Amino acid sequence: MMKADFADRYEMLVPGSRVLCAVSGGADSMCLLHWLVSLREERQLTLFAAHYEHGLRGEESERDARFTAQQCAAVSVPCTVEHGDVLPFAEEKHIGIEEAARILRYRFLEETASQLGCEKIATAHNADDNAETVLMNLCRGSGTRGMAGIPPVRGRIVRPLLSTSREEILTYLASRGLPYIEDSSNGDDAYTRNRFRHSIVPLLEEENPSFLSAVSRTAQLLREDDAYLCVLADAFLAEHLQGNVLPAAELLKLDLPVSRRVIRRLCGNGLSMERTDALLRFASGVEPGVLELPGRKITRRKGKLLF
Amino acid sequence: MMKADFADRYEMLVPGSRVLCAVSGGADSMCLLHWLVSLREERQLTLFAAHYEHGLRGEESERDARFTAQQCAAVSVPCTVEHGDVLPFAEEKHIGIEEAARILRYRFLEETASQLGCEKIATAHNADDNAETVLMNLCRGSGTRGMAGIPPVRGRIVRPLLSTSREEILTYLASRGLPYIEDSSNGDDAYTRNRFRHSIVPLLEEENPSFLSAVSRTAQLLREDDAYLCVLADAFLAEHLQGNVLPAAELLKLDLPVSRRVIRRLCGNGLSMERTDALLRFASGVEPGVLELPGRKITRRKGKLLF
Repeated sequence: MMKADFADRYEMLVPGSRVLCAVSGGADSMCLLHWLVSLREERQLTLFAAHYEHGLRGEESERDARFTAQQCAAVSVPCTVEHGDVLPFAEEKHIGIEEAARILRYRFLEETASQLGCEKIATAHNADDNAETVLMNLCRGSGTRGMAGIPPVRGRIVRPLLSTSREEILTYLASRGLPYIEDSSNGDDAYTRNRFRHSIVPLLEEENPSFLSAVSRTAQLLREDDAYLCVLADAFLAEHLQGNVLPAAELLKLDLPVSRRVIRRLCGNGLSMERTDALLRFASGVEPGVLELPGRKITRRKGKLLF
Repeated sequence: MMKADFADRYEMLVPGSRVLCAVSGGADSMCLLHWLVSLREERQLTLFAAHYEHGLRGEESERDARFTAQQCAAVSVPCTVEHGDVLPFAEEKHIGIEEAARILRYRFLEETASQLGCEKIATAHNADDNAETVLMNLCRGSGTRGMAGIPPVRGRIVRPLLSTSREEILTYLASRGLPYIEDSSNGDDAYTRNRFRHSIVPLLEEENPSFLSAVSRTAQLLREDDAYLCVLADAFLAEHLQGNVLPAAELLKLDLPVSRRVIRRLCGNGLSMERTDALLRFASGVEPGVLELPGRKITRRKGKLLF
C-alpha cells in the first residue's frame, strides 16, 4: 500500500543513505515516519526527524512539539526541534504568515539536513495534497508548471507519499494503532486549500472515484513534458547565451514551447504568458529599442537582446 | 467583445472564404451566426448554415429546426437542415446516444461543407465549454491531450468563440434583442457536463473570478507543448519507420515525452500511459517476443519492433 515502487522510481530512499524526515505530528508525517522506520533495517537507512514549531498556536504548538519528540524517541529516531518566530519574519519581509512559515520551515529543514549530513529530506505530502495543488493552480492560472502539481523531488527534498491517498494513510495508522495529532492549521495556504479539500475535490471524486490517481498520472506526464522542454531551452542557452546577450534571430527560430521557456529561464518562472509573448514580439523588431518588464529592462540592438 | 483577435490568430475567417456555421438555434450558435453576419461584408465571407435535427425530442426538435431556418433566412444565410436518426445508429454501433449524435452531426457538417465548397466549418463552443472540458478530462484522467481542452482548430472545423464566455454571449444577444431557443439537451455528454457547469465551475469561479480565462490560457500553453512534442515524434517516425518496422534502439534513445508520443502515433491516442510504458519496457528486451495490446500485437525480433 505504501508506495515503495513510487519512492524507488525517483531514487528517494537509496540503501545506506541518511534521511531527514520532516514531522509535524499530524497523520501524514506520522505515517511517513513509521513507514521509513519499517524500511530502516532492510535498506540500512540512518533516520533523523525534524520538527519546526512555528510558534503560532501557543500551548498547542508546544504540545505538538513534545508529542513529536516523544514519538520519535519511541522508535529511536533522533529529533531536532526548532522553535521559530514566524510573525516578525512575515512583517519584516511583507509576506503572508503561511508563506513566511513555509520559507522558515524549509530553511530549517535544509540547515538541519546539512548539519546531520543527510542526502535526503523526506516530506509527507500525499496524493490528496497533490490533486488539491493541481486544481488550485489550474484555478489561479499558474500555467503549465503549476499543472504538474507538487514535485516528487526538488533538490534533496523527496516526497515518498505523493502517490498515496489520505485515506490510505489513515488506514495505515489505524491498522497499526499509531497515534497522531489533529493539525488545527494545515500548513501552506491553509484556507484556500481547505475549501478545495472539503467542497471541490469531493465533487470530483463523486464523478470519478479514481480521481486522485487520475490527477497524479496527468501531473506526472505534464511534469515530464515540461522537464524535457526545459532541457531543450537550457541546451539552447548553453549554446547561444554569451554573458547576458542572446542573438534574437536564433531565439526566433525556436518553436514557442522552447522559446517561451528560454525567456522564463532568463526572466524568472513567474513571468506571465502575456509578457513572455510580448518579449518575443519585441525580439522580432529591427530598430534599436528597450522593453521594460517588472524589475528589469531588455535592450535590443543590432540583432542582439541584452538581458 | 467577440474575439476577432482570437479568430485571426488561428486564421479562422480568412477574407473571401466560404464558411459553414453549425447552428442549433441555442444562444451560442445564434451569437456565432449573427457575429459572422456582422463580419460578412467587411471580410467578404460567403456564409452558410447547417442544422442537424437529431430526432430525439419529437416536436421540440422540429420546432428548433424551423426556428433556425427562419432565423438564417432573416439574415440571408442559406440553411441546410438534416433530419437524423440517432437511435438506430447508436444501437447498430453499440455506442451511447450522445456519442452517436456527435458522430452523425460532424459527419453531416463535413458532408455539407464539401457539397457547398466551404473552407471552414464554424462551431459555437465557448470558454465555459472549454473550461468544463478541461476539468472533465482532468477528472477522468485523459492525460496531457485532454488537459489542452477543446481544440480551436481541427481540420476545417474552427471555434471562433472559444475564448468568449457564456456570459459575454448572452450579453451580446440581449443587447441586440436577438432571440434564441433554450437547449433542453446540451449536446455531448450532457449530464456529466451539466454537473460540472452547475456545481463545480461556480465554486472555482468563487475562488478566482477570472477562472475561465485562466483555464483558457493554461489549455493553450499545454496544447502548444503537446503539438510541438508531436512534431518531434512525427519527425522521428518519418526518419525511422520503415513500413511497420521500427528499430528499438533508436526508439529507446528518445526522451519519454517523445517516445511515448511515437508509441501513441503508432498504437492510437487512446493507449493508456501504463500500456505505453509497458511497450517501452518491452522494446528494451533482447530476446524475441510478442506483446499483446487490445486489438494488436507487437513483435520484437533482432532489435526491431514490428507493429
